[in-house]
Amino acid sequence: MKNNETLVVALGGLGEVGKNMYAIMHDDEIVIIDAGVMFPKDELMGIDYVIPDFSFLKQNEEKIKGLFITHGHEDHIGSISFLLQMVNIPVIYAPNQACGLIKRKLIDKNIAYDNLKVYTEDTVVKYKNITVEFFSTTHSIPDSHGIIITTPNGRIIETGDFKFDLTPIGPMSNIHKMSDTGKAGVKLLMSESTNALSPGFSRSESKVEEELQEIFERCKGRIIVATFASNIYRLKHIVETCKKNNRKVALFGRSMENNIEISIEGGYITDNNTFVSPEVSNTLPDEEVCLLCTGSQGEPLAALSRIANGTHKQIKLKPNDTVIFSSNPIPGNNASVSKTINKLYLQGVNVFVNNSENELHTSGHGNEEELKLMIRLFDPEYFMPIHGEYRMLKKHQDIAIECGIPRDHTFLMQNGDVLSITKDGVRVKENIVADDIYVDGNRIGDIGNVVIKDRKIMANDGILVAICNINMETHKLLGRINITTRGFVLVNENEELLKEIEDVATKTVNNELAKQNVNYNDLKSQVMQDLLMFVYEKTGRRPIILPVILNVKK
Amino acid sequence: MKNNETLVVALGGLGEVGKNMYAIMHDDEIVIIDAGVMFPKDELMGIDYVIPDFSFLKQNEEKIKGLFITHGHEDHIGSISFLLQMVNIPVIYAPNQACGLIKRKLIDKNIAYDNLKVYTEDTVVKYKNITVEFFSTTHSIPDSHGIIITTPNGRIIETGDFKFDLTPIGPMSNIHKMSDTGKAGVKLLMSESTNALSPGFSRSESKVEEELQEIFERCKGRIIVATFASNIYRLKHIVETCKKNNRKVALFGRSMENNIEISIEGGYITDNNTFVSPEVSNTLPDEEVCLLCTGSQGEPLAALSRIANGTHKQIKLKPNDTVIFSSNPIPGNNASVSKTINKLYLQGVNVFVNNSENELHTSGHGNEEELKLMIRLFDPEYFMPIHGEYRMLKKHQDIAIECGIPRDHTFLMQNGDVLSITKDGVRVKENIVADDIYVDGNRIGDIGNVVIKDRKIMANDGILVAICNINMETHKLLGRINITTRGFVLVNENEELLKEIEDVATKTVNNELAKQNVNYNDLKSQVMQDLLMFVYEKTGRRPIILPVILNVKK
Repeated sequence: MKNNETLVVALGGLGEVGKNMYAIMHDDEIVIIDAGVMFPKDELMGIDYVIPDFSFLKQNEEKIKGLFITHGHEDHIGSISFLLQMVNIPVIYAPNQACGLIKRKLIDKNIAYDNLKVYTEDTVVKYKNITVEFFSTTHSIPDSHGIIITTPNGRIIETGDFKFDLTPIGPMSNIHKMSDTGKAGVKLLMSESTNALSPGFSRSESKVEEELQEIFERCKGRIIVATFASNIYRLKHIVETCKKNNRKVALFGRSMENNIEISIEGGYITDNNTFVSPEVSNTLPDEEVCLLCTGSQGEPLAALSRIANGTHKQIKLKPNDTVIFSSNPIPGNNASVSKTINKLYLQGVNVFVNNSENELHTSGHGNEEELKLMIRLFDPEYFMPIHGEYRMLKKHQDIAIECGIPRDHTFLMQNGDVLSITKDGVRVKENIVADDIYVDGNRIGDIGNVVIKDRKIMANDGILVAICNINMETHKLLGRINITTRGFVLVNENEELLKEIEDVATKTVNNELAKQNVNYNDLKSQVMQDLLMFVYEKTGRRPIILPVILNVKK
Repeated sequence: MKNNETLVVALGGLGEVGKNMYAIMHDDEIVIIDAGVMFPKDELMGIDYVIPDFSFLKQNEEKIKGLFITHGHEDHIGSISFLLQMVNIPVIYAPNQACGLIKRKLIDKNIAYDNLKVYTEDTVVKYKNITVEFFSTTHSIPDSHGIIITTPNGRIIETGDFKFDLTPIGPMSNIHKMSDTGKAGVKLLMSESTNALSPGFSRSESKVEEELQEIFERCKGRIIVATFASNIYRLKHIVETCKKNNRKVALFGRSMENNIEISIEGGYITDNNTFVSPEVSNTLPDEEVCLLCTGSQGEPLAALSRIANGTHKQIKLKPNDTVIFSSNPIPGNNASVSKTINKLYLQGVNVFVNNSENELHTSGHGNEEELKLMIRLFDPEYFMPIHGEYRMLKKHQDIAIECGIPRDHTFLMQNGDVLSITKDGVRVKENIVADDIYVDGNRIGDIGNVVIKDRKIMANDGILVAICNINMETHKLLGRINITTRGFVLVNENEELLKEIEDVATKTVNNELAKQNVNYNDLKSQVMQDLLMFVYEKTGRRPIILPVILNVKK
């Protein structure tokens, strides 16, 4: 690395929505922005989380000055607990609400860490070469901030997640600080791209509040609202709407309880005595009750799904109940959300979802015109879209070019790419290893593609285990071959098929054993091959064939 | 069954989009409408098709007069091949295009059936009590029809799939025949509900044609169009647009080739010499080429996905290629479609998708106002929404009530429900068994919930097989316990863990064998329990634990 060079290292968040993490390095100093987690798609069978690859940070551990968190959502704080287990982080700065969430997370995971500090918009953190400052933004969680990093090569802005809500539920974003910083000169703007594909200006959260109020006025029975537990401002105005309409709120779902608790602690939600326990809610008149619950994405184990299934312990639906989805299905969840809605209709209740007639949700991310406004306010020399799938980043790049940034001053990058900033300009440099690291259960990284491939095969066609005891010295098969299957066919109804499979395996084993030189691997692969062919012909299925040959000495 | 009663039996299509099938029965006569298949959701691990339960038809086999097909889409014809294997169907009437598709399907499955007849709108099929007639509708495949069934208890209309496109690519739907039938008197209207949740009137197919033409005019390089192979009218005007713009069409994907072939045979697509082979297309100038391919839903093995991945044998992308998605993602496919789009962008090509700026797709199903028009034209006494998820059926019921049908004349039913029509009125009667039947590979119904549950567990956490040879007489464990896993952990990197698992199993087995009375089942379940607990504690995962205890006699 050349002296006097500033590097921007993309550790996560490019080409994906999730696990945001960037490192800014100058000389012997590194500051890290965010440490998020990604919730995997279905194709990553059974994987619980995907986290960034921390190898680069581990290799440069002694240079790390601190981790700076933009806001408290999982895709920005979710891998902190994993990071702290692997890399020494001298200090974490986070805004108040995020601090509450991080603390809880570390307690849950039994991780002791005593250098978590709260920053405000006025905090300034100075290192030898790097100075870190903050500006308030509007997002769906309180205390969201963008970050200003001043280096010897100029200012770098990382926006965090934002929208420009001009009638927000919480405080306004600090457009004046953005404007002043822009006027003072910005080298590189790194701006989030989640909604780059949505034209126009996003709906204000206040619109949603009005719409909810209208539905609340009309409803006679209980109201059940499902929304994102992480959308604190939404929770806040649902609670306020309940108070206004003389309804008590009962909470369902652990993440809902956690977020409300932290929001009360942080002073964001103040109507403390609006809350009642689920038990108490069942004793109140229907028109005085609102159930606020998780499950807006149709997650099978969440409160709303259980209620819709009729399997919730405390809540049974009544015909005059109204269910409000104050949410949109996240891409990929449409089918499970539809399933929940169908079940609710089957139970005979009224259902409201967000659509053109009922404006019951708005995104926490800015649309095209808001992204333009951010670019115009900071008026940067160079631009790097972050936080989004590739098509979002690409569209955001086009938007920046429309706003007058020359194409060769824009950088469409991938995780692992490194941007080099010098007095002479900005360019993409070599890249580092920034793989997806899988977390399954409580173990990090011990799942690889082989394991996932096996899971996929078993998910589709199951497994067939063929166990033979043989005596390798006498070339004899001892006893019958044991055929056991899981996820392949209904065993009770297919005894004949399983007997035929045993016969095929027996024939193959005896044929192989009759040879002069019996090779253990040949025997195994011949059994596998013959069974796979026979089974496919008989059933059209290709389960994993697992022959286990045990050499038993008499 | 009372004499003089007409029954409508819902065998499939209620509470789901797929496997449409209804039976109309009067006295000793049954006519069947459609025999569709449903493509299962991810949660039905590895199941290839879901088909209706044919038990009711089997039990009443001798009454069946014929099967009448509304149009040639899979959710209306896809289970014919299964039906013919299980139930005697004296005759199948289908419109021309559907006949072509059914014939091909029966040849593929090696099923001989020689009583497949083509009907036209003028065909009248008379039985003792039941008369069957037809009316033309507009849908995304040619020759779509609704069915008029006249019984001693009045007329029953089954719409099939329809939209009212007033500037269609093919012929207009016969609104005059609908109107005349309505005037003559309709007892029950069974109308499809797919787009009941979409307000207004659907976009005309002609709009899509205009928009495609505009993009074709602008593009300099190759054009790659992905669309539904079953949308014959779309294929037709894409081919015509190619001809107009002096481009040859090469086809990619087997279903695309099949559908084009049948459409040429049927005379729906006439520009025969517009087609070239993929090889020839590679020799033509870019601006004279259009590749028409499957994969608009991001299906991993389809042509477009392979092209996007760079793994297609014949087609490599070039920077001035343009990819057009003339389609919408079907709910549940959003994630895989996004993935394909991201890969295309990564390859640097231009991509057009259907959105408010580019009207590149329209549904083949009518929106709310079109559903109202159908109700108004037939002006039925009773109404039964069919073909849709429960929330769609419910909305369609509300639409019918808005159109003046009394609520107690509307029937929101589920598969297996039976509607009874007499001179005195219409009411829901007892219900029959109409389960989902699973087809996996080439076997029907040998997969049950146990198998699916096992597949789910293995999909998430894999399987761990523990094999022990014991001598039940001497209470001795013979040799080491063999631990084999699939989809659980990376085996090479976890030798220590696997050794610990073996130790736990060995200890358990020895403990059990030391008891005076060794019970085979106790031994097995103790191994299962101890390993599950140990493995969960160590890894946080819950694989299937499969202990196999073999009794080896010395």
